[in-house]
Amino acid sequence: MPKRDYFNDPNAPVANSIVVAVSAVVRSDRGKLLLIERTDNGLFALPGGAQDIGESVTEAVRREVREETGIVVDVIGLSGIYSDPRHVIAYDDGEVRQEFSLCFHARPVGGSLTTSSESRRVQWVDPSELDGLEIHPSMRLRIDHGLSNTDQPYLG
Amino acid sequence: MPKRDYFNDPNAPVANSIVVAVSAVVRSDRGKLLLIERTDNGLFALPGGAQDIGESVTEAVRREVREETGIVVDVIGLSGIYSDPRHVIAYDDGEVRQEFSLCFHARPVGGSLTTSSESRRVQWVDPSELDGLEIHPSMRLRIDHGLSNTDQPYLG
Repeated sequence: MPKRDYFNDPNAPVANSIVVAVSAVVRSDRGKLLLIERTDNGLFALPGGAQDIGESVTEAVRREVREETGIVVDVIGLSGIYSDPRHVIAYDDGEVRQEFSLCFHARPVGGSLTTSSESRRVQWVDPSELDGLEIHPSMRLRIDHGLSNTDQPYLG
Repeated sequence: MPKRDYFNDPNAPVANSIVVAVSAVVRSDRGKLLLIERTDNGLFALPGGAQDIGESVTEAVRREVREETGIVVDVIGLSGIYSDPRHVIAYDDGEVRQEFSLCFHARPVGGSLTTSSESRRVQWVDPSELDGLEIHPSMRLRIDHGLSNTDQPYLG
């Protein structure tokens, strides 16, 4: 579904929906970070997606990470809440969705790197390499929070 | 809006929506807990309600607590995430909502106890008095987590 992100944009359309999405900061034993290259816009991102009706948020995290990366994870904590009304995403069908995303800490427990229709590349990235990758500012914020080792989740 | 709660009920209807709701564990300096007696069902509960489009989750907490109790709060942390697909709420208009609630820690910074159309009583309750109050099991779970002083939020 084609879409457009508006982030702190005074000309953004008015939101008409909130949909729960989840993402995950998955770290390997060596501290590398699991990232996908999104098929829809070519940007690097944490794996994640919308929660389905009938599953809990932690079930949504495990499903999305597995679908997009092939990696099986355990969810070990919450990294942050992102519910900024100044970040909206407009879809072709008229939906304008206000950002609502929960980002979790997770660790790999199985599986192997596998691409999907939504993720044309999947890789473990050393945090020192992040500055060389094209990443949306709102996604980079989540990554930076997830790597920051603070005790309390970010509340945004 | 009349409604019915189903909690771990095999005869519950199938959910068709997820709506973000928030609630707050507000503690006084003396450790008392801010509770409302709900007008719709007479049960005691934490103040809270649905997030509005156009506000962040912490803005929703401050608004709901103020509307239902008269108390102005600062949000200081996340107590738990409640997204159990086995808890659904059926409304008269056909909506069957899967539980999705974020419960926050908050502290009072102003205002005074005031009832509302949704809260026919508002009071500071000593935790030792909780067992004498009629409280829905899913709400009691949130209260118990909120009083338990654990570092990591509950992920449910």
